[in-house]
Amino acid sequence: MKLGIYGYGNLGKGVENAIARNADMELAAVFTRRDPGSLTIATPGVPVVSADELPDWADRIDVLMLCGGSATDLPIMTPSLAKLFNVVDSYDNHSCIPVHYAAVDDAAQASGHVALISCGWDPGLFSLARVYAGAVLPDGEDYTFWGRGVSQGHSDAIRRIPGVLDARQYTVPVPEAVERVRAGENPELTVREKHKRECFVVAAEDADKDAIREAIVTMPAYFADYDTTVTFITMEELRRDHAGLPHGGSVIRTGRTGLGDANTEVFEFSLKLDSNPEFTGSVLAAFARAVDRMAKRGDKGCKTVFDIAPVDVSPMAREELIAHRL
Amino acid sequence: MKLGIYGYGNLGKGVENAIARNADMELAAVFTRRDPGSLTIATPGVPVVSADELPDWADRIDVLMLCGGSATDLPIMTPSLAKLFNVVDSYDNHSCIPVHYAAVDDAAQASGHVALISCGWDPGLFSLARVYAGAVLPDGEDYTFWGRGVSQGHSDAIRRIPGVLDARQYTVPVPEAVERVRAGENPELTVREKHKRECFVVAAEDADKDAIREAIVTMPAYFADYDTTVTFITMEELRRDHAGLPHGGSVIRTGRTGLGDANTEVFEFSLKLDSNPEFTGSVLAAFARAVDRMAKRGDKGCKTVFDIAPVDVSPMAREELIAHRL
Repeated sequence: MKLGIYGYGNLGKGVENAIARNADMELAAVFTRRDPGSLTIATPGVPVVSADELPDWADRIDVLMLCGGSATDLPIMTPSLAKLFNVVDSYDNHSCIPVHYAAVDDAAQASGHVALISCGWDPGLFSLARVYAGAVLPDGEDYTFWGRGVSQGHSDAIRRIPGVLDARQYTVPVPEAVERVRAGENPELTVREKHKRECFVVAAEDADKDAIREAIVTMPAYFADYDTTVTFITMEELRRDHAGLPHGGSVIRTGRTGLGDANTEVFEFSLKLDSNPEFTGSVLAAFARAVDRMAKRGDKGCKTVFDIAPVDVSPMAREELIAHRL
Repeated sequence: MKLGIYGYGNLGKGVENAIARNADMELAAVFTRRDPGSLTIATPGVPVVSADELPDWADRIDVLMLCGGSATDLPIMTPSLAKLFNVVDSYDNHSCIPVHYAAVDDAAQASGHVALISCGWDPGLFSLARVYAGAVLPDGEDYTFWGRGVSQGHSDAIRRIPGVLDARQYTVPVPEAVERVRAGENPELTVREKHKRECFVVAAEDADKDAIREAIVTMPAYFADYDTTVTFITMEELRRDHAGLPHGGSVIRTGRTGLGDANTEVFEFSLKLDSNPEFTGSVLAAFARAVDRMAKRGDKGCKTVFDIAPVDVSPMAREELIAHRL
């Protein structure tokens, strides 16, 4: 199958790396809104093409991977490109997913394409864990913990504070909360009890560090509701110790079974990722395989990971899966 | 949806308990090869019926849950009952699954029913974890660890040794092996390095304990390839400390991503179960929902968990899942 990548940031590079690792996939082109001549990509021999030329590629690409941001790119990009291509996106603005879904479904139904939205690990694999766990253990409660990992949005929020040169924010699950959940207590947890936030900040030489610290810990929505630590470091330390984009987390559901709720069953799915964008790109690539297969079977419309049978995600033949993976 | 249960052992009771916890399910009848009058079930008002009368119930049951054993019951039961009912079984003899699949598919295709085989947690949820993990991290290796939990088959093998009155065998993952796998080492592990076996044995008063211990630790296939401990206990201790059927385990896959395999990503799914049969019954009930929906859409033939889209397993409507679980 021939894949295109639209957007060559961290996620686009992650998808490119994943495509190279899947023998049944080939990268056809990378599309960019930048000057194509300014971009050097990792895969030799693959054209870098201006996004303006996307319509010319409609018949040459099985699935187009939309590697833009959820804030402003994907709400426009996904519905408009679902008119021309089968597409996959990683739209992760949880509260706006139904609106995004409706816009994408209209476009994909009309054009006869398959458009998978909100793929990745959360939304994505974590969503799958929540659905399987909820179905299997109806009398229970599930919890999602994120981290320890870098939150791009929170890092950006710190960078916008005057006097901040650069920053990295880690979301960290509170170990006591995780343990209470694993123990089957089904606790009611506040935002503050579930996660804490660690900020590493490079300040300008003449900046007022106390004011920066205060601006961070009191910032509504981002930090005010959390226990937040602020550590000032040098630019050298930031580059040396905080260059990666690790992340991860877990979905845990505990439920009761048996007469008189006698027994507790614990379902836990967790990820520990050195590279958030590379892993997310790997998930997108695997699900692009399903999109291609569904489209070739004549399916159409907007899909989520919930609509996709696991057999379609795997490179192995169904008989092989039954014989060796069941 | 109306469910029937065939076989009222530990698993049948687990399914019964799960049905009571799902508002969209109703237990229609329990079928048994024993004298129906000898059986008292937990759900009030539900008939206990002789298995001979199963054909009379073909139009009154949406999905029949086959709660027999994999050794001798299910290879006969599932193909023969797939002629009359949509069915779910938990066939777990991994190496014989393709043969079982073929027999069941013949019957279900011919009769127009949906027959889900090898459902539960392994095979079942663990199989799903292996397939998703393998698709997402092609350059990696996956490992399945079982336990700490009671193995019925190994307990039975000990009970057959002369002088043994009763026994309970726990399968236990070797912690060092689990840690090496989690660390992304992708080690080659022998059977002995992955699991050890703990046996609690009640011997007859005049039995030769050394001979029993020797018979256990040298037993081919069951114990000879493992580090096995044997502890003799009294019948009272067995009843007090080993009455439950706990189990669990984990599927762990670590894979490489990025240029030069720079990064390691760890995917882990684990279960910690107070009651193996009650949790297995809960999984069977959830997937019976999907079987009913697939059958009502006109699907037919033998299915595995790989063929089932997660949306069909959930009691929630698709829109609700998209809005609240993605």
